[in-house]
This record gives sequence, structure tokens and C-alpha cells, in this order.
Amino acid sequence: MSGIISLTTDFGTDDPFVGIMKAVILGISPKAQLVDLSHQIEPQNILQAALILGSSVPWFPTGSVHLAVVDPGVGSDRRALAVKNKDHFFVAPDNGILSTVLNDYSEVYALSNSEYFMKKVSQTFHGRDVFAPVSAWIEKGTPLSQMGTRIDDPVILSIPKVKVDKNQLSGEVIAIDRFGNLATNIYRHDIEENFHPSSNLIVNIEDKSINGPLTSYSEAPAGVGACLINSMSVLEIFCNQGSAEKELKSKVGTPVTLTEKH
Amino acid sequence: MSGIISLTTDFGTDDPFVGIMKAVILGISPKAQLVDLSHQIEPQNILQAALILGSSVPWFPTGSVHLAVVDPGVGSDRRALAVKNKDHFFVAPDNGILSTVLNDYSEVYALSNSEYFMKKVSQTFHGRDVFAPVSAWIEKGTPLSQMGTRIDDPVILSIPKVKVDKNQLSGEVIAIDRFGNLATNIYRHDIEENFHPSSNLIVNIEDKSINGPLTSYSEAPAGVGACLINSMSVLEIFCNQGSAEKELKSKVGTPVTLTEKH
Amino acid sequence: MSGIISLTTDFGTDDPFVGIMKAVILGISPKAQLVDLSHQIEPQNILQAALILGSSVPWFPTGSVHLAVVDPGVGSDRRALAVKNKDHFFVAPDNGILSTVLNDYSEVYALSNSEYFMKKVSQTFHGRDVFAPVSAWIEKGTPLSQMGTRIDDPVILSIPKVKVDKNQLSGEVIAIDRFGNLATNIYRHDIEENFHPSSNLIVNIEDKSINGPLTSYSEAPAGVGACLINSMSVLEIFCNQGSAEKELKSKVGTPVTLTEKH
Repeated sequence: MSGIISLTTDFGTDDPFVGIMKAVILGISPKAQLVDLSHQIEPQNILQAALILGSSVPWFPTGSVHLAVVDPGVGSDRRALAVKNKDHFFVAPDNGILSTVLNDYSEVYALSNSEYFMKKVSQTFHGRDVFAPVSAWIEKGTPLSQMGTRIDDPVILSIPKVKVDKNQLSGEVIAIDRFGNLATNIYRHDIEENFHPSSNLIVNIEDKSINGPLTSYSEAPAGVGACLINSMSVLEIFCNQGSAEKELKSKVGTPVTLTEKH
Repeated sequence: MSGIISLTTDFGTDDPFVGIMKAVILGISPKAQLVDLSHQIEPQNILQAALILGSSVPWFPTGSVHLAVVDPGVGSDRRALAVKNKDHFFVAPDNGILSTVLNDYSEVYALSNSEYFMKKVSQTFHGRDVFAPVSAWIEKGTPLSQMGTRIDDPVILSIPKVKVDKNQLSGEVIAIDRFGNLATNIYRHDIEENFHPSSNLIVNIEDKSINGPLTSYSEAPAGVGACLINSMSVLEIFCNQGSAEKELKSKVGTPVTLTEKH
Repeated sequence: MSGIISLTTDFGTDDPFVGIMKAVILGISPKAQLVDLSHQIEPQNILQAALILGSSVPWFPTGSVHLAVVDPGVGSDRRALAVKNKDHFFVAPDNGILSTVLNDYSEVYALSNSEYFMKKVSQTFHGRDVFAPVSAWIEKGTPLSQMGTRIDDPVILSIPKVKVDKNQLSGEVIAIDRFGNLATNIYRHDIEENFHPSSNLIVNIEDKSINGPLTSYSEAPAGVGACLINSMSVLEIFCNQGSAEKELKSKVGTPVTLTEKH
């Protein structure tokens, strides 16, 4: 174990919910290193949390535990999961939030052993009563097989995929960051598999055409739409010293295409 | 001692005030585990901070220290307090911010021994110069009796209480969370003491009538006002997949009554 | 070394960028104490970050490492720096962000040894790929001389300075905090060097005249413009129980003068 537990929620940081979960964790595993990924997930936006986990987990040391709670179904009969991948552990409701990190190596358990929960489990705050204590017990080395039953049918979200058609990649904006940069679902490998490295590429978004990937933000003139392959290996549309979100009037879901210039 | 120091302030996180307090704490107690409860208390809203402490402290392990700084009177002659309850320690200005956590077991000290303060104490930032170092020294095991003088008249806020009248509980909204859920000052025990468990209850808020407590958010139809006893054991009015704050046009102070249906 | 690494960025906390940097740091130095100063620097506002570092660093224990990433030039040929002062270490892009902390004792190195970077260095996120790992290696005791080449020409920002003229100090608002308090670039020592301690001073800002420094916020009547020397030793204009920013319609850059009353 790395000693690290990461936290991803839609709880915000105005209310003390995240601090309460940390209190519960540290009561069980006093030396855990707690790392916040984001608590500003849009309320109940499971897909957004899944995308953040997918892009963040690879940077954590082997043996980290990742706690993710966006949980509109709390108190219903949705299952609670603990997962072991080759390198990482996950604790989350069974609603698709782990869609980006589950793979062929994943051992998925439905949590059932209340010995590892808080004594009284509320119907409204499983982050505190189930997921926080379970993540702490995992960090302390408790085998997942003691905590629940192996399952093979976790909920998986369908994440919008790129379409390849007549030398055109058709994707969409899937996330917008603080700087107004537009991340798409077009990956570096999609581009490498479909175009020759020396191709002149054009990105179309809304009614704008943008010359294909630069290698850094600072290469673009100020205030003009431009694109590059970003640090998460996806095609990102940006505006140097400005906001592509505002300049291009784009939002999550806006279509983006990539074609070859002739 | 648990090794944990929690922090609650109205400093926000844009400015470095919280980071500076943590620097001071870690200079004295390098291995302390620091847990943020909230730094987004409305500026100078002492009651809001008191309510957050009251609902959060029970989830911390025994022997934790809780630092709370909402301090409109900094630099005046308001006292600075350190408190020992049976299980927990508190450090805060004497302005009522500890109203929800003081009890018959509380030993309250007015801080006076400047040996435990920063060398130069400003008139404007006691969070850094008094409360942070004192909380770190407490975490390291310093007896409170070395730090000040025992007092028995700390400032206590009057917190709005439920009224019982003709089989009706009359309370109000006392806090609204990020999801727009309305927490009231009607506690589970108020309900249990005044109504039969099999009663059909009705909540009235603004001009709406809501059927009495469900057990989870997901039991309610989407977009409709509903209520439950929340994870802090208070009556909460919510709107599944929506915001009760917006739907019911409610705010802190909005009256809420609970009666029996006939 | 103190074991502490502070972080100052313009990344915000909605996106997982800060959490990813922490994951990288803890992968190298698992027991580091991470302290956030601010991640809400206005995007690309290097001066704002420099001012926050200048006012925060003195409160950290000797041997702390300070990581600062506001980096509009990422991917260009701007240098990456590691700095050793008498007491503290700094890791940052060479764009002036360290202007307030560099001094005659500073040993400045341009980072060049990729052994201390992540294996693949992106052109867009040096916070993760260069600055985070280097700060962790420094915290573990790696000499700066192994990481790069000594230089003597780091970029220095010109920070607006006070002008002294005919018994008048002319400065400006340089930062506004969450409470709407206006920090100026007029320091306690500027006042002490130019006026007699018993002088009656007047501050002029916009079309308002304010009587010279009080010693605490609570001395001022509610809602009226007032001033004091704040906890960072600069002249600050405030409004007790209100916002000087709103009351005085001021912003960063608004001129402020201090003169003697006759």
C-alpha cells in the first residue's frame, strides 16, 4: 500500500461533508495521506467524476486507494463496491463512476460485511458511513474478500466514443477546465491510427476551423482558437491568454471533427 | 491525542490565510494531521460556524483538536479560549462559536500565557498569532492550565429552538447545503418525543405541504419536495434530483412546521 | 528540511491538476506534509502569486520547499528554476513568480537534469512533469547542484513601489482579500521612515479621506472606511462589518496617498 487515499466527490467544500469523511478515515488509519482530486463535481454528474478518475489515477503510486462518491442512489438498493485492479484500489457506489478505471484485471466486490462500516449506517450519507471506513480498512491491508462478495456485473457507463468515417474523426467536447480549455474525446492514438504523421490537419468546432495540433500553448498567437494534444493525451482546443469556452461559445457535448487539409 | 487538528474559518481559500495558519501549526507540531471542515463560512457568521462544529466534531476520534476562527472582534478585548471536553479540545475566540460543543464536561480557559503565542501578536490575525500555535501546543500535549485561567462564563449564542404547541413542532431552516437541501432545527428526538411512530406526519414550508419523513433521497419522485431525517439526525427538506432551496424558494430562517395528518 | 512542501498555483480546485501534482510528489516523498497556499490565483497572474509567496513564506519553518506554478510560457523555452535561500527552497518557472522571495542569499539553478523529471515530459503540464517531482526530490535532500546549472539572471518583475514626495507617500492597492479589505504597497517601515510617530495621518483613496492607522478592525465604527497596518505589515484600508472594496469602489491599482493632517 502507498498510504495514500484520494477523494473525489460532488460534496463541494462549503459544507463539512468532506472533512467528516476524513475524520472517519483517520480514526481508522491515522497516518493515511489524503489527497483531494475534486469535490466540485457537478452534483450527481457521475460521468464527470469517472473522467476525472480516469485521467488522475495513473499518476498515483501503486497501492493507492481511490474513494469516489457521487451517489444519487444512496439509500436505494444500489450496491456499494470495492475494487482491486493490478495497481490500485477503488471504493464507490455501483453506478458507473468507476467506468474509466475498471479493466480486465479488476476484481470487483459488492460490500456486505457491516463490520467494516460505521456502527449506524444512515440512508443518506454512505460516504461517511460505508465508503470512508471501507477505504481506510483497505489502506490498512484488509483483503477485499473479507468485505463482500465477488461480482462480475458492475454498472458501466457508455462514454461517448469517437467515430471514424471517410478520413474524418468525429468526437465532442467532454470536459472544460478552469482556463476554458476544451478537452475532447479524440485521443492521441486515434489521430496516430488514422492520419499520417506529416498530414496537415484541421479541427472544426462550431463554425470555426483551426489548424491541427501545436505542441504547446505558447506557440499560438494570443486570443485565437488553437489546439494541441494535452497532458492527458487528448485533443484539446484552447485560446492562448483567453478562454476557448467563451471565444468559441462551446460547451460539453459540442461536436468536434478532425480532418486532413487538402 | 489523535494527532488531528481540524480547521473551521471564514477565511476562504483564495487568500493564503489558511495556509499560513497551517505553516505555523506544522512549525510546532510537524506530524499533525490537518483536516479542513470549512473555510467558506459566510464572513463573520459565528452561528453558521457553530452549527458546522456541532455536526462534525462527533465523527472525529477522541483527542482531536478543533481550531475555529470566525473573529469579528479580533484586536478588541474579547477573550481567546481553549477548551477541554471529555473527548475533544477546542481553540477559538470567545464569541459563541463554541456554543454547540460546550457542555457540562467542558473546562474552559481564557488564554493568557503569551509563551504559547507567536512572538509578535498582531491586532488583526489572531488565527495565525494565537489560535494556530495554541492548537499545535495542545496537540503536543500541553495542559490547558499552563496556557490560561479557568473561566465559567464563555459567550453562548442563543440557537433557534423548536417550539412544541398543540401537537405541532414549529422550527425553521437553519442551514442549506450545496445540493439545496434544507436542514431544520427539528431533531429526530423532537419528533420521537412528540409523535407516535406510526403517525402520518405532514411538513409545511412556505405554502407547500410535504408528506412526512421518507428514509432516503431516492424514495422520492424526481423534482418534488420531500423530507427525511438526515445524516445529522435533523429533519431535512429536499428535492430528489433538484434543489429544494430553489423549488420552495426557501432560505435560512424560513419557518417549518410538522403536524399529524388526520 | 521541515518536511513541508507548499503549493501555489492558478489551477483552481475544480479540476484534478493539483491532486495529480500531489500524487507525483507523494510517489517520491511519501511522508511530505503538503500545504496549499492558494490555487485560486487569477489565471496567469504572476504578480498575484509572487505577492502571496512574499507574505506567506516567512511563516513556514526553516527548510520548507515552496512550489509555485503560474506558467503561461509552459512549453516555450522559458527556464525552470530551483532556488535555495538561506532558509527556504523554491521551485517555479522563470517568469518572475519568485520576485518577492529572491534576495542576496539566493542560489538560483536552471533545471536541466531530466533524471529528476517524470519520464515523459509533456509540453503543457510542467507542474506535474517537472516542478512536482523536483520539489519532492529537494524535500528528500537532493542538492540543487545535481539538478541544474547555476544562473544569475532570473526574471524579476517590477513591483509597484511607493513614491515619497513633499511629505506624501503615494502608493496603490495591490491586493484585495475575501473580506473586501484593500492591501496597499505602503509598508509600516515606509510610514515610520517618513512621519513622526505622533503625526496625525490622513489616507486618501478615490474621493474619500480616512483618518490614519487604527490598531484593530473593531476600533472602527461599522460600515465606514478606516485603515490599519495589517498582519503583513502593510497599510490596509477596510470597512468594519462591510467591504471596503464595495464601499470605496476600489480595485487593484487604485491610487492611495498618505499625508499629514494640519
